[in-house]
This record gives sequence, structure tokens and C-alpha cells, in this order.
Amino acid sequence: MKTLNVDLGDRSYPIHIGPCLLTPDLLLQTISHQEVLIVSNETVAPLYLSYLESPLKSAGKKVVSVILPDGEKYKTIQTIDLIYDALLTNNFSRKVVLIALGGGVVGDMTGFAAATYQRGVDFIQCPTTLLSQVDSSVGGKTGVNHPLGKNMIGAFKQPLAVFIDPQTLKTLPKQEFSAGFAEVIKHGVIQSDAYFSMLEQKRESIFNLDPETLIDVLSGSCQIKAFVVEQDETEQGIRAILNLGHTFGHAIETEMGYGVWLHGEAVAVGMLMAADLSQRLGMIDSQVTKRIAKLVADSGLPVSVPEKMTVESFLSAMGRDKKVEAGTLRLVLIKGLGEGFVTAEFDHQCLLETLTSFCVA
Amino acid sequence: MKTLNVDLGDRSYPIHIGPCLLTPDLLLQTISHQEVLIVSNETVAPLYLSYLESPLKSAGKKVVSVILPDGEKYKTIQTIDLIYDALLTNNFSRKVVLIALGGGVVGDMTGFAAATYQRGVDFIQCPTTLLSQVDSSVGGKTGVNHPLGKNMIGAFKQPLAVFIDPQTLKTLPKQEFSAGFAEVIKHGVIQSDAYFSMLEQKRESIFNLDPETLIDVLSGSCQIKAFVVEQDETEQGIRAILNLGHTFGHAIETEMGYGVWLHGEAVAVGMLMAADLSQRLGMIDSQVTKRIAKLVADSGLPVSVPEKMTVESFLSAMGRDKKVEAGTLRLVLIKGLGEGFVTAEFDHQCLLETLTSFCVA
Repeated sequence: MKTLNVDLGDRSYPIHIGPCLLTPDLLLQTISHQEVLIVSNETVAPLYLSYLESPLKSAGKKVVSVILPDGEKYKTIQTIDLIYDALLTNNFSRKVVLIALGGGVVGDMTGFAAATYQRGVDFIQCPTTLLSQVDSSVGGKTGVNHPLGKNMIGAFKQPLAVFIDPQTLKTLPKQEFSAGFAEVIKHGVIQSDAYFSMLEQKRESIFNLDPETLIDVLSGSCQIKAFVVEQDETEQGIRAILNLGHTFGHAIETEMGYGVWLHGEAVAVGMLMAADLSQRLGMIDSQVTKRIAKLVADSGLPVSVPEKMTVESFLSAMGRDKKVEAGTLRLVLIKGLGEGFVTAEFDHQCLLETLTSFCVA
Repeated sequence: MKTLNVDLGDRSYPIHIGPCLLTPDLLLQTISHQEVLIVSNETVAPLYLSYLESPLKSAGKKVVSVILPDGEKYKTIQTIDLIYDALLTNNFSRKVVLIALGGGVVGDMTGFAAATYQRGVDFIQCPTTLLSQVDSSVGGKTGVNHPLGKNMIGAFKQPLAVFIDPQTLKTLPKQEFSAGFAEVIKHGVIQSDAYFSMLEQKRESIFNLDPETLIDVLSGSCQIKAFVVEQDETEQGIRAILNLGHTFGHAIETEMGYGVWLHGEAVAVGMLMAADLSQRLGMIDSQVTKRIAKLVADSGLPVSVPEKMTVESFLSAMGRDKKVEAGTLRLVLIKGLGEGFVTAEFDHQCLLETLTSFCVA
């Protein structure tokens, strides 16, 4: 078991990476609570729910599970109500702990329910997808989508602990593994040249789910994510670099309807668009853009936008991005591999060129 | 203008009590934001909205107002969506400030929207009812009701500032003034014998809305509330004493359906029930109970529970109270005037006697 620490003062917490589900001792040590609500979805629950339920019940705790429908389109305030209902009908108090067992959607909604049930209760993340293991389970962003914008409703709520079991990746569909890997690539692109090179070199053993390589990749990504979050918990500044590719990607997701493209797929193309723009602005040379595009393509991720996307649909959706401040669009760009930064100062003509070149491609 | 300070570290804020609406200089100094969303309701907006809108618009800010339906029954996650919609359709960024202009329902919902829009934006309280001026606008409790329990969904979110204009009480219906006064009485009962005596003595000039007396009463109540909140911002312990009468009161509100009884009316009877129980437990003598009952009655507040309440309906609703910990009911009781405390250790036979005596009365 490998353990990292996210250092956020009195909201600090550990990330445990290893066979957490088969050896639940550490989980049991973490949970002093008598009341436990496990939130999972209809895909993950049949596979892994019993690994959590059994030891917690054996320990004499009151354990209730809620099984949500699976999919980004259910990441709504209406679905959260299923969690509230379970908490209230079981008379769960403010001393309850919520456990999120599933991907990013389950984690984001469970975290938001924990942030808002009786004005805040404890929660634990047990992410079962690559995307959630390297990204959404670390950093305390929780929330739901709104018909007018993705992730627009939410709260910062740090978990008590994160338990990552790489074994769960064996049951993850290939397409979802690739989508999660987009965020792994992103971490290299914004923060570490060396990590990016390691991904290029070990891509095959990663996709073969070699256990040791996976632990290296997961801990490397969580470390980068934690490092950024520690500097800027509530995204007042530097944390926004984690959104590389997301402004473009969110535009695709919003326009296509949530869940039609996987988040990671949208981010992958968005990252290529950000690299393209960085290159047009003279910040990086074409070699960098090509390396990113190659790793994205080799990882089974899309390199072009959906046909129905237009320059106008991008601009309209991007106007609602949360990095817009007083009407000014800010973007994450790169000065080189491992050097992401946020800026509002870029030639908008170049942005139009990037959008045009991707939309007619 | 009288100014108190709520001391909560980097979440500290001032409470200004005086003619804030007619002389908005201080409000304008507080708002550096370019984007402003004012949330009010259909009753308050026609009376006071222009006092806020005009100076803010004159100062060149982008000002949008949302008018919610009026009433406790609209304190729901569905109504919050009207606020989200206004924020999103106007492309408001994370640099927006929300202003709550209205009573506790408007304040609680605006605060919750501010806590959850894009994971948290600024907000300001301009409470226009006695209840919200002395209670809900101070302390950062925000949220909405759930069909299964009052205030079950919410967040702690401290405002940037609170502006209390006692002039607004002139347009407040008598019944609502009385209901707000229940919380004023409560502050005396739990924390200050001297304040309680002042209320007994000045009750007539308070109800005649004498300006100087009102400022004394408002600042006295806010001071008590702030003092308690400062010691325990997120209600881990002592803050629960502010819930004197609320466990019984919430049971009445839940059972009757939200909004049938005013919150303050339910709290007033609940406070008498807590005093009755304290007396049965030998903690106070009958003189204290009588003084509280007299002030409650003289203030036009109910002293008995609705006919349809039964011992069973109280016990069932009380089981869902947020002060229930691992199945144990905790109550706020008093050892004397000004001496509220929270306890789970009381003779449940006495509780049954109190419930029985009020339910057959």
C-alpha cells in the first residue's frame, strides 16, 4: 500500500493506493462512525459493493447503500435527492460518513451530498475508474451539472481519505480507461516533462494494466494533482491550470449534451486545441504539439472535434466557463511540456484560427 | 449607524444597524464587485428593491434582480434553481456578489445559492424582517427544506456583511413581528438575564417600533447570537443552545406542513415546552417558566400546540432532528434565565409528561 498526503491544514487527508478493497483494515481504521451510507451506481455496485458492506457490517455499524443510475446525464440535483432521501428515511445524523464507491459522477455527487446534508458531514472517496482515481477524487471539488452549464452547482469539500484500488481498473471498459488517461497525460503536460516522458515510454504496460506500473502512474498523477491543489485549494489562481483542455472540452460536452462524449475524450481534444493555440501564439514549437497529439492518438483518444461543433458554438459555450472573469475569457496554455499557465492575454485572432482549423477538420 | 463585528478569523464580517437603505454609502463601499445579483421576494421587492438597485446601477455595476415567490413553502431546492438560472443566463462569473433582500427564507436560499454557485461566491445579507435581523442573517447558516425535514439541506456560508435597517419593520405584519420577537426572547432566555428583563420592561415601546429601543434590541440580540456563533461556527457544541425550543418547534412545523405556523410561533411554544421540561426536571422553579410564558403571551405569541399534534407525532419528528446523535435525542434546556445548555441526559419520562401535558391542553 502506497500512501500520499494532501496537505491542507486541518482539512489534510491521506490517499492510499493499493489493494484497499481486498484488505479493508485501513478503511475500518479510518471509519470511527457508527452510521455509514455507501453511494454507488448500478454498474459498480454488483462488482465491488460487498467488499465495503461486509466488513463494515461485521464491525457492527449501521450500513445503508444507495445505488444510483450510471452516467453523466444523471449528475443532477434530482439524483442527489436520492441520497438525501436515503439519509433522511434512515434518520442518519450529522455523525454519518458517506462513502463514494464509483467513478467521478458518484464521487462528485456523494461529495456534494456530504457538503450539504445538515450543512456538512464526513465523506470518503473510493474511486473505481481511472479518471476519478487520478483526478476527481483528489482536491475536494464536488457538485452537479445544470442544464445551462457543467459543474455549475457545487462546493469545495475535502474527503476524510481517498482509497484507490487499482484492481478495479480490470473491469473498466477500454474506452473509459482511455478517457481517464487523458487526465493523466494532462498532468504531465501542465506540470512535469519527466512524468510525460515516462507515460510515453510505459504506455504499453500501462494499457496492459501491469500492477506496478499502475501504482507508479496513479501515485505520480495524484502527487501532481495534490501539489497544485495544496497551493490553491479553492481555485483562486494556479489551480486553474488543471483545467488545461477543459474550456474547449466543456464546450463540446455542453453542445453535444452531457454524456454523449466522455469527459476525458472531450478534454483530450481540448488539450490538443490548447496546444495548437499555444503553438500559434509562438509559445511552443510544433514538436511539443506533435508529441502530445501522438500520445493522445496512441491512447485511443479522439484528436478531432465532433462534426456538429462550430466556431460559434464553441464561443457561446466558452462564454459561460467559470474561468470567465467580468466578461474576459481566460485559458490554460503551455509554454512547454510541464509548463501550464493561465492567461487572459492572448491574441483572439489566434483563438479563432484554432477554432476554425478544428471545426473544419 | 451602529456596527458590531462577528469575529470568525478570515470569515469575520460586520453587522451594520441603522438607516442602511436610505443612506447606501456603506453598502457601496462594501461592494467592489462589478456583477451584482439581488434576490428578493414579491412582497419585499416593491417596497425596498429600488433602494438597492438605483445606487448600484448608478455606480456602473451590472445589476440583475430575481424576485422569488414569498413564503416558507417555497424554501426548496426548486426555488434555488430560479437563482441559478438568473446567474447562468446572465453569464455571471465567480466574482459576482449576491444580495439577499428579504426575510429568513430569502436569506437562507440566497446564502445557499452563494455557497453552491460555481462552488462558492460572495453574498451580503439585507434582512427586512425582525426574525431575519436578529437570527437567520447572522451566523452563516444557509439552506432549504426537504419534504422529510426542515433545513436538512444546506451549508455554512458566512456573508461579507449584514445591513440591518430597522425602518423595514414598519411594513412588517404584526404577526410576523411577534414571530421574530420569539427569537429575541430566546436570546435572553439562553444567554442573558439582563437582556430578558430589558425586554419585559420595554416591551411596549418595542412593539410601538420606537427607533432607539429597536436599535438596542437588535444590537443586543445580534451580539448574543454573534457571541455564541464565534465560539462554535459549525455547531459542534455550544451553538446548539440557539436551538432552544426548535426541536419541539420543528416537529410542529413538519407536522403542520411548512409555512402553516410561522417559525417564530412554533419556536415560542417550543420554548415553553423546553421550560416546562426543565421545570419538571427540577432545573428551574415555576417563577422562571411563568415569566417566559407571560412575555410570550404578552407578545402575541401562541402558548399551546396545534390541536392535531400528538405525543407520537412529536416523537417521530424529533427522531429526525439534527441534534440526534447515533440515535440519542439531545435537547436544549435551561438551568435559569440566561443559562441554556444542551444535554442528552434527561429523564425521558419527564419528556413524555411535557409532551402529554401540551398535547391534551
